[in-house]
Amino acid sequence: MTGSVEEYLNQHKDRHLNLLLDLLRIPSVSADSSHRQDMRKAADFVRSAMEKAGLTALLHETAGFPIVTGCWREAGADAPTVLIYGHYDVQPPDPLNEWTSPPFAPDIRDGKIYARGATDDKGQMLTHLIAIEAWLKTTGSLPVNVIMVVEGEEEVGSNNLDLFLESKREEYACDIAVISDTSMYAQDMPAITYGLRGILACEVLLTGPNRDLHSGVFGGAVTNPINALVKMLASLHDEHGRVTVPGFYEAVVSLTDEERGQFAALPFSQEEFERDLQVKGTTGEYGFSTPERRWARPTLDLNGIKGGYQGEGPKTIVPSKASAKITCRLVPNQNPQQLTAALRQHLEAVCPPGVRMEFKDFHGCSGLVFNTSGPYFQAATSAIEKAFGRAPVFIREGGSIPVVASLKHIFNVETLLLGWGLNSDNLHSPNEHFHQRNFERGTLASAHLFSELAAMKTS
Amino acid sequence: MTGSVEEYLNQHKDRHLNLLLDLLRIPSVSADSSHRQDMRKAADFVRSAMEKAGLTALLHETAGFPIVTGCWREAGADAPTVLIYGHYDVQPPDPLNEWTSPPFAPDIRDGKIYARGATDDKGQMLTHLIAIEAWLKTTGSLPVNVIMVVEGEEEVGSNNLDLFLESKREEYACDIAVISDTSMYAQDMPAITYGLRGILACEVLLTGPNRDLHSGVFGGAVTNPINALVKMLASLHDEHGRVTVPGFYEAVVSLTDEERGQFAALPFSQEEFERDLQVKGTTGEYGFSTPERRWARPTLDLNGIKGGYQGEGPKTIVPSKASAKITCRLVPNQNPQQLTAALRQHLEAVCPPGVRMEFKDFHGCSGLVFNTSGPYFQAATSAIEKAFGRAPVFIREGGSIPVVASLKHIFNVETLLLGWGLNSDNLHSPNEHFHQRNFERGTLASAHLFSELAAMKTS
Repeated sequence: MTGSVEEYLNQHKDRHLNLLLDLLRIPSVSADSSHRQDMRKAADFVRSAMEKAGLTALLHETAGFPIVTGCWREAGADAPTVLIYGHYDVQPPDPLNEWTSPPFAPDIRDGKIYARGATDDKGQMLTHLIAIEAWLKTTGSLPVNVIMVVEGEEEVGSNNLDLFLESKREEYACDIAVISDTSMYAQDMPAITYGLRGILACEVLLTGPNRDLHSGVFGGAVTNPINALVKMLASLHDEHGRVTVPGFYEAVVSLTDEERGQFAALPFSQEEFERDLQVKGTTGEYGFSTPERRWARPTLDLNGIKGGYQGEGPKTIVPSKASAKITCRLVPNQNPQQLTAALRQHLEAVCPPGVRMEFKDFHGCSGLVFNTSGPYFQAATSAIEKAFGRAPVFIREGGSIPVVASLKHIFNVETLLLGWGLNSDNLHSPNEHFHQRNFERGTLASAHLFSELAAMKTS
Repeated sequence: MTGSVEEYLNQHKDRHLNLLLDLLRIPSVSADSSHRQDMRKAADFVRSAMEKAGLTALLHETAGFPIVTGCWREAGADAPTVLIYGHYDVQPPDPLNEWTSPPFAPDIRDGKIYARGATDDKGQMLTHLIAIEAWLKTTGSLPVNVIMVVEGEEEVGSNNLDLFLESKREEYACDIAVISDTSMYAQDMPAITYGLRGILACEVLLTGPNRDLHSGVFGGAVTNPINALVKMLASLHDEHGRVTVPGFYEAVVSLTDEERGQFAALPFSQEEFERDLQVKGTTGEYGFSTPERRWARPTLDLNGIKGGYQGEGPKTIVPSKASAKITCRLVPNQNPQQLTAALRQHLEAVCPPGVRMEFKDFHGCSGLVFNTSGPYFQAATSAIEKAFGRAPVFIREGGSIPVVASLKHIFNVETLLLGWGLNSDNLHSPNEHFHQRNFERGTLASAHLFSELAAMKTS
């Protein structure tokens, strides 16, 4: 890579930071319909940023929120074509009262940028756009062909992305995909993620009596929807922390002894883990370590529950309704659709008389694991080494990035998951943040990646 | 009773209705601290209404909300002294969106007064005050001595009432107590309630990780507070609908065969019961009928539950907190304090590592049953017969009226529980209402009660 690209990045540091801050000021919460306008605003912002960087940018309408693309295809047929994916939507910010500074008024404290979406994924997504800008403004070209795809529904299941990518099967044919929506292993310990968990997400709603009832007048004689719901949900785990949904573990690809060895070799302190979360002890699937539980074992988590009186003090009612949101993290080769159906069946089977059950299937995707040998992973490794001063470790990740499975399926490409953030950046939590230093090093690594990929291809 | 009293009630019907409507316009929700001002307003309203009726009225400050009293003691030492209890506080109105007309903008539709507190207890309490007014305005006197005590904390446990009544042990010495805070058995089927369930109320709160966590990054490796809570709460009932808290049934006074016979003899249709609530089937303690479950068996109901994400759509978090509100209905001779401690112990015993449990004890009171033979119950029977045109049935009630136990304990008096409302009046539910006809007949019965009690005493 020519030194001028790196110089450019240093000279325009402040402007690039402000670009991120401006994007973070837009509350693009895809799960909350009251933010429709903001979603549009964020999409327009990304499109115009792509244009200014020198890409041919387009905004594509979908049944949901728009998808923004930016292309530069002048590197020629011999140069590799890289598809870079990111998302401009963010998680809901609540609980609001736990934020030190407002989630959509970015604030920089001790080198960290605090805002919802700082790491996930506005900050990480922009590193690639800024690297592209640096190449085009200094050399007038890029060593690779680039297709950048930035969607607005990642946090709600990417429901319209696959349809869009399918429609671009030929136009967007590519050699490798790059996504920065994961984490480093630790500060100054960059990582390439070669495995992801899948997910299924749903909601179960119970309706009992047609109105809240006096718990004295009716209590004991009607099915209480909350009483029923807790029984039903409690039946989803056994006493060993294993999920009881029939067939849940059938297809699970177990960890190899080699992988268990690699995991065990990574620096990890259970004590620090618990201190950071301020918990005494943890629970989980019997017989597995914390890293194994996080990266390689399936889960069933209740993400939210509500029913009856939510105010102060007591209220002596039998409520009319109760509901809970459920997500399962899946590992290769569990099938999200099959398991969602099995979960629904299990809940219906244990639903008692006197309540009506409704079931909402939100979305699902499979987990996957890549083979880390091969030139693309080598190119990424040296790019990261040049930017961070040390080679990345290969890790797996407990999160889910549905698009990675789609990219494999539609374009038959692997994805380089290059995380510039940290697990401690409070993704999906109050006070989400992104280290300014990682924002800059990630941008530099992305700039190196383009030349490394080009070199690899021509060598 | 002189005809003039009844005439007076007929002539002033509209003014008395408006008196109730004005009181119903005051949102005196004792459980919600944002209504402090309204509580004061309601107390002042009751005090001035007592004065206008001809009672010597006083407002007594307490550590909580004021207690209002009104006395007339000129019937002489031979006349019985009647203590009438009521409350001016009401249940919270939510869920607000289920009200046809706003809860604190009383609306009259098909002879029913719709508003929070219409039956429980503003409307029923006023029947006695209006009867007193009718006597005093027409005859210049009452056939009995009257002490009226109206508190503002019935819906939150009457925490300051006992201390007040204790302080009036001599001054308020009385022969019998009267409370209208129960229900008739059915429309045109008046009832005297001779048994009440007791109650204990508490809240359990779990705190896990110090922040909401990404369910992909952390899921499966930390104790999820909602997962833990549903397991803990589910463990409170066995598969026969019996409460599993150790010792819960130990002290329970079982129904006699005679009582089970009386219950079975009352008109009751399980089909209509389910149709009214729009449920298919019910569940409850194995081996008992619906009336037995409602009146004579203890319960454990979850009144509210919350944790994690409460918004639209999915949110992939492991939440930091989860909590639930619990009430148990108790029967004679279960001890609320002992059982609250046992419940707390049970929950602590099943609380898993990785979450911190907090327990809030709201309040409790014992259940009780009266002997229905005796002159006071006879006097009440004939008063009701005169006003309603038929003798009342003797029933028990699933609700709890803590003051009844206190009155027995402090003044050694029984309480006549004369209900003018209906179970179908939506007490504690949206669209609470009171039949205008029952408001008027209840007032007339109260007017008759004073002369019946006087006659009884002198006969």
